[in-house]
Amino acid sequence: MKKWVYLFDEIKQAEEYCGGDWDKVRGLLGGKGANLCDMNRIGVPVPPGFTVTTEACNAYLQADSHFVEGMWEQELAALSALEQKTGKRFGDPSNPLLVSCRSGAKFSMPGMMDTVLDIGLNDQTVEGLARLSGNERFAYDSYRRLIQMFGSVVMGIPDEAFESILEEARKAANVTSDSDLSSSELKKVVEKFKSTFKQRAWREFPQDPIEQIRLATEAVFKSWNGKRAIDYRNAEKIPHDLGTAVNIVTMVFGNMGNTSGTGVVTTRNISTGERELEGDYLLNAQGEDVVAGIRMTKPIQQLKREMPETYSELINYAKKLEKHYKDVQDIEFTIENGKLWLLQTRDAKRTAQAAVRIAVELAEEWIITKEQALLRVSPEQIDFFLHPQFKTEERKIAASEGRLLAKGLNVSPGAAVGVIAFDADLSVKWAEEGRSVIMVRPETKPDDVHGMLAAKGILTSRGGRTSHAALVARQFGKPAIVGASDIDIDLVKRQMKVGDKVLLEGETISIDGNTGEVFEGSIPTVIPDIKDPYLIKLLSWADEIRRLRVWANADYPVDAKRARDNGAEGIGLCRTEHMFFETERLPLVQKMILAEEEAIRQEALNALLPYQREDFAGLFRVMNGLPVIIRLIDPPLHEFLPTISQLQEELSDLKIRLLRDSRTLSEVDKILDQINEKTTLLTQVEALHEQNPMLGLRGVRLGIHISAITRMQVRAIFEAACQVTKEGVVVLPEVMIPLTSHINELKYQLEILEQEAKEVMQERGISIKYKFGTMIEIPRAALTADQLAEYAQFFSFGTNDLTQTTFGISRDDAEKGFLIEYLEKGILKENPFGTIDEDGVGSIMKIAVEKGRKTRSDLEIGICGEHGGDPKSVHFCHKIGLDYVSCSPFRVPIARLSAAQIVLKEKGVKAK
Amino acid sequence: MKKWVYLFDEIKQAEEYCGGDWDKVRGLLGGKGANLCDMNRIGVPVPPGFTVTTEACNAYLQADSHFVEGMWEQELAALSALEQKTGKRFGDPSNPLLVSCRSGAKFSMPGMMDTVLDIGLNDQTVEGLARLSGNERFAYDSYRRLIQMFGSVVMGIPDEAFESILEEARKAANVTSDSDLSSSELKKVVEKFKSTFKQRAWREFPQDPIEQIRLATEAVFKSWNGKRAIDYRNAEKIPHDLGTAVNIVTMVFGNMGNTSGTGVVTTRNISTGERELEGDYLLNAQGEDVVAGIRMTKPIQQLKREMPETYSELINYAKKLEKHYKDVQDIEFTIENGKLWLLQTRDAKRTAQAAVRIAVELAEEWIITKEQALLRVSPEQIDFFLHPQFKTEERKIAASEGRLLAKGLNVSPGAAVGVIAFDADLSVKWAEEGRSVIMVRPETKPDDVHGMLAAKGILTSRGGRTSHAALVARQFGKPAIVGASDIDIDLVKRQMKVGDKVLLEGETISIDGNTGEVFEGSIPTVIPDIKDPYLIKLLSWADEIRRLRVWANADYPVDAKRARDNGAEGIGLCRTEHMFFETERLPLVQKMILAEEEAIRQEALNALLPYQREDFAGLFRVMNGLPVIIRLIDPPLHEFLPTISQLQEELSDLKIRLLRDSRTLSEVDKILDQINEKTTLLTQVEALHEQNPMLGLRGVRLGIHISAITRMQVRAIFEAACQVTKEGVVVLPEVMIPLTSHINELKYQLEILEQEAKEVMQERGISIKYKFGTMIEIPRAALTADQLAEYAQFFSFGTNDLTQTTFGISRDDAEKGFLIEYLEKGILKENPFGTIDEDGVGSIMKIAVEKGRKTRSDLEIGICGEHGGDPKSVHFCHKIGLDYVSCSPFRVPIARLSAAQIVLKEKGVKAK
Repeated sequence: MKKWVYLFDEIKQAEEYCGGDWDKVRGLLGGKGANLCDMNRIGVPVPPGFTVTTEACNAYLQADSHFVEGMWEQELAALSALEQKTGKRFGDPSNPLLVSCRSGAKFSMPGMMDTVLDIGLNDQTVEGLARLSGNERFAYDSYRRLIQMFGSVVMGIPDEAFESILEEARKAANVTSDSDLSSSELKKVVEKFKSTFKQRAWREFPQDPIEQIRLATEAVFKSWNGKRAIDYRNAEKIPHDLGTAVNIVTMVFGNMGNTSGTGVVTTRNISTGERELEGDYLLNAQGEDVVAGIRMTKPIQQLKREMPETYSELINYAKKLEKHYKDVQDIEFTIENGKLWLLQTRDAKRTAQAAVRIAVELAEEWIITKEQALLRVSPEQIDFFLHPQFKTEERKIAASEGRLLAKGLNVSPGAAVGVIAFDADLSVKWAEEGRSVIMVRPETKPDDVHGMLAAKGILTSRGGRTSHAALVARQFGKPAIVGASDIDIDLVKRQMKVGDKVLLEGETISIDGNTGEVFEGSIPTVIPDIKDPYLIKLLSWADEIRRLRVWANADYPVDAKRARDNGAEGIGLCRTEHMFFETERLPLVQKMILAEEEAIRQEALNALLPYQREDFAGLFRVMNGLPVIIRLIDPPLHEFLPTISQLQEELSDLKIRLLRDSRTLSEVDKILDQINEKTTLLTQVEALHEQNPMLGLRGVRLGIHISAITRMQVRAIFEAACQVTKEGVVVLPEVMIPLTSHINELKYQLEILEQEAKEVMQERGISIKYKFGTMIEIPRAALTADQLAEYAQFFSFGTNDLTQTTFGISRDDAEKGFLIEYLEKGILKENPFGTIDEDGVGSIMKIAVEKGRKTRSDLEIGICGEHGGDPKSVHFCHKIGLDYVSCSPFRVPIARLSAAQIVLKEKGVKAK
Repeated sequence: MKKWVYLFDEIKQAEEYCGGDWDKVRGLLGGKGANLCDMNRIGVPVPPGFTVTTEACNAYLQADSHFVEGMWEQELAALSALEQKTGKRFGDPSNPLLVSCRSGAKFSMPGMMDTVLDIGLNDQTVEGLARLSGNERFAYDSYRRLIQMFGSVVMGIPDEAFESILEEARKAANVTSDSDLSSSELKKVVEKFKSTFKQRAWREFPQDPIEQIRLATEAVFKSWNGKRAIDYRNAEKIPHDLGTAVNIVTMVFGNMGNTSGTGVVTTRNISTGERELEGDYLLNAQGEDVVAGIRMTKPIQQLKREMPETYSELINYAKKLEKHYKDVQDIEFTIENGKLWLLQTRDAKRTAQAAVRIAVELAEEWIITKEQALLRVSPEQIDFFLHPQFKTEERKIAASEGRLLAKGLNVSPGAAVGVIAFDADLSVKWAEEGRSVIMVRPETKPDDVHGMLAAKGILTSRGGRTSHAALVARQFGKPAIVGASDIDIDLVKRQMKVGDKVLLEGETISIDGNTGEVFEGSIPTVIPDIKDPYLIKLLSWADEIRRLRVWANADYPVDAKRARDNGAEGIGLCRTEHMFFETERLPLVQKMILAEEEAIRQEALNALLPYQREDFAGLFRVMNGLPVIIRLIDPPLHEFLPTISQLQEELSDLKIRLLRDSRTLSEVDKILDQINEKTTLLTQVEALHEQNPMLGLRGVRLGIHISAITRMQVRAIFEAACQVTKEGVVVLPEVMIPLTSHINELKYQLEILEQEAKEVMQERGISIKYKFGTMIEIPRAALTADQLAEYAQFFSFGTNDLTQTTFGISRDDAEKGFLIEYLEKGILKENPFGTIDEDGVGSIMKIAVEKGRKTRSDLEIGICGEHGGDPKSVHFCHKIGLDYVSCSPFRVPIARLSAAQIVLKEKGVKAK
């Protein structure tokens, strides 16, 4: 006779039947059943029980709702075994055996039958339970719950039928909560439930515990083919032929007096990760009393005094379970008359901080390997470490007070609190006065950067994940929310509106870059510690494992310093043009652009040279001994000039002033002069105007068009390199050409570079070893990588632009427009500007790597787009064989971990 | 003893020495020597002569300027042989033998020594020549020429030394031309030349003809290593070790009396291709007399009367040479005392028209194969056929009169004459009045199209090869010049300035789209005949050979008609949005775009539907039985609206008017209303504004964003298809999705299409077979072609956009900016918008073809970008296995020929 029913202590038989395959055991007994058996086996006190197998379920369903031969007999035998083990008996009012019945498939399935508790209660045993617990109210409440659960779950009676009775009872008793109903009132409810049951189910509520169990077992079997379960399986792609097991478990009660109790513990502190049991309990109480919060719970340490033996038992089981399941456990327990029962254990949820410490300590305790530890922390959890966070409680309060104003895109993590400033200059001014500022703009532009740097956080009403605001914010690690479109910013009135609410400049808001939420007023923050010793240790383990090097994008020495502190091993991208936007330099840059004579242009460039040299020298000093990739000028020139629209408006204003205000000839002359000047500028700006600047005169095209810029920048790089070399700094410069699409562009720039570099080195009498390379950010560059590698010693994927051109998407436009629509409509599953689009952009990257290395086997290849700090993209970069990823200094730790995780994934290491 | 010298009748020996390899013979004797031998062998009377081999040259150069052993003896022997053959003798005043000496390498090399004529003249023989020719002046002129040529070419005396003597002589004789110097004056010149020679060369002019020949031979050898020759070989990549041969040829004279003469003929008419000898001659004259035009030449037919035997001899040799060289020959001949000598023959240059007729007739005469005939006509020559041309003479006159105003880019071939109109409406108005108009604009936009259609030609001062003006002009076959940047157009003053010249609206200009030249005034034109029977025949042969199908891009029935007439086998691209710009439709389109309610949008679309349906029905009728690919709406919506700048200017004007002009309240109100209206429109236009519209909301993105447009267009297509099917037309519609980058876009549009198409077909009770496909114009589409082919039944490469995205170049911006610079600097060899960039764009096309066909082996693949009409690109499309190319109707014949030529090229067929 086949075995259809396994007692919890018959795990050995089940394993034998399954050939020792634990996965098959879970298939046979379901996840829950297998787990209860497992706990039982390792000596953890689980209330006695048994599991009816999934095979029995399948046989039942195939046999058109008939139990397979022998099954019911085995179930009855198992019930007898329970009576023996517990010393209790079904239907015995003096010592009634009560059980719970629940479904349990191989995979957890919320779509299936709920639990039925307290099976075994009837008109007689309820009295026994009242006596044993000394709590008649509890006994009758349990009974009414059984009838209600049994009625709805097993018999399919709509729950309203019972709920309306409860409502009447509350009204009659003039109370608002069921828990305020007295035992006599509950007795009446039970009577009414029973008659409703009869009326709706066409039968009496079964008084025979065995019949209760039979009906419940059948209900669990049938629930496998319920609509919700089928829908769930379809959605989750779970096979339909697995079937469900049925678990019958002895009820234990923590409310049997003062030697009973119930509680929840985690085996370590899940906020801090500290190695101590943490949790709460209540004596003479049921589980729901702990959760409901009606009674004040006690910290678990108090149990040591109240029930020292039980406490030390609990400690031991906690350690045992942690070791067995190789992770911190979240355990439910009940003490029934001094006897400790563990009802459930599962991996505990934890904060990011705790996750790191726990992972490190578990490894140090030899419970898991270091490799496993690295898989226990997610990159997102690392990210958390790097930014201030709102205090959880305070955020809840703010939300409950209706202070949540709007939600935008969470583009740069961390929380920030400050006063609203609507422009960059004010932001700087207030910051200098020591005020904490949130810079709020419809969107930001390069000349807002000084304000963004001064601010604690950035909020824009427009823009997408790779808008200027988002990029700059991530670059500088500023909490930022963009595209909060519900916020209406009026720069003229200096106010912002959300619905009816109006906030003026200077009022305080709090923004959460993790969630994209904007709050009115101030929410206190805490700053997790990046110098956390556990994090440092974990990342050092990651460094031992990973193959990818991790570099950082940094334009200024201060960024480079931060990058090194965070573990960066080089600078993968220094954007020289950011330096051009600084206040004292911009006029020189504009002069250089607008110069109509070569001599004037050269004069402006000569004036810029010392600035650039100092920038580079600073960077080299910080990165002593590490490579620094400097990218020559990239953006289109008109970005350094006012816009056409701006100038047109100014001109229009001047003309109106001419007509309206000017009364004297000298006034007229003055305005006419201004008009002339503006008109000239407008003409120049118009001449530089491009339909599609993204695809226009920028990058190397600019370096070829005005080769004096290339020459100046190269000179600055090599002068700086010579200078710091004399100071004893080891300098490894790599000069990078942006936006290359054709080999001849590289050739042309290389000639200039070699000539200028040689000249400087001769002047200074120093020889500098350097590399020459190119961005790969245009499809043609990737497609002709074999040619480019003839000149380029390194490639760096500019995946922001490469995504734009490969996808034919202008991200500035798309992320506030159709790209969002595409994500909403599911046409795209992921924003390709957040995570590398492997099918498209990724496949062209692969081509570039293969072709490039074919020409030059030691070609250094990396990525310096935003994707370099995205875990999934880091994995991709590893897989296609890049040498390094370069990301924002703030994301370096994330990249370090991600780079290690992909190695482990490839090795087949599992977190458990 | 090795043979270093070959008489012209020793070709057999040379061939034996070279193992029968004609290429080696040319290497040994040089191109000229081998050819003279060849003519001699086939019985054409070539003046006796011989060739000193390139091997002798190489030996001379290696031996440090010493003749190799035996060479000079062989040369002397050959000279004796010449004496025997001609009956003349060197240095014999009674019958002097004169020869020419010239270099002749394997490949023609302009960098080498010039010819020295009349070798053999000295103080004695010059008298003999005077006697024999009866022309003392001629004899002394020849003598002074010999001294001059010998002096400069052989001895390296600067030519000015001789020229200054000639100048003095002219002054003294008071004449302006050397030919006016008398024989006595020339005698004095000869004396002076001789003393100058002595002075400069440190020796007397050699009187011994044999010494003259020896020195000339050495000079030829040495010229191989002259600076100019080396430079030339470096530039042309000709090996430096080939050496040059020396050709010594007996001089013959056409000026020996009235039984002598000289002339030039082509074996057929090289203007019309007619099968008749054509050319001119003069009796008792030298070759230069025919060229100089001092004496009136006679048409060759007159020779038939004057010297009938010689004429028929000439006819026979002409036929012989044509047959031998398998092409029309351009022949120089001289008759010396009744004896006909052919001095040179070469393939004749010819007009496009002649080229076609000649190729066809040569094939029909079995002189060449049909396949060879197809290789004899270039695609450019076909292009010529399709457009009016200026009369050659008249153009020369205009140029000589200084009427050439400017030169721009020759973007659309053909010549046009008309009055200047500076805007589209005026262009239409004047055209309707029957005037011929040239529309002149700084640049054109979609709403200029009606004016461009009405004009005979288009001229813009800005824009590049794929600017709007250029594209539209090519599309409609209008002669056009763009980017004529010397022309300064003042739309306010209604005039254009070129330098100091001012031309007003209404004045006449002539433009040549073949050359890019703009002329003042009118130049008469002729129209070659596209219905030319020879062209039709040639193209029919092309059709038999080619594998590629040739389709056309046509938006209107009239274009489709033209395309069919030109041989198109389908429509590869119908751009539906062009239809939207028409006067009565544009307001509906704008209403549709600006609609804030779905209902209003649908109303506008409903009103557009019948227009579109009629467009499509017309197209289907014309293309009865042939496939028609209709592309759904592509351009960004703001193209249908006024620009921001335009609206801002209008608003500024209104505000100024408000301040300045308005005096009554009702005036104020009126202006305020206008300001409000414009402001609203401005806001809407600003909302649609994109940074990079090329990469923005257009193509399929638009079709997804406003799926009602897709629905309307699909309905129009299928309603039209049903309608014409009922008329008996066979309709093969193919619906094409533009700008696809992701498979899900296709899926989304296909669902709409299938639903709508089904609905229409059910309504009409007709089933239409159709195809669904996509443009491949975004790199990602090409890279994921395997996925796209799951839904797409056909691909069409949009190589204009694909070039923009693959190269990261916005063509509108680049072609007036850095792209031109790149071409100038040689960074790019070709404009990628003119010819497919094979390394970049081409390689991604290959990927798409391979991946697409992998998923769907019968995938139909074509190209509908501008490149479809470019011969080199057609070849590429053939090579990567496309099914068809689709181009402007006007370029269909070009594509037909190109498609055949690539097949022949692959088969290894040579033009000769």
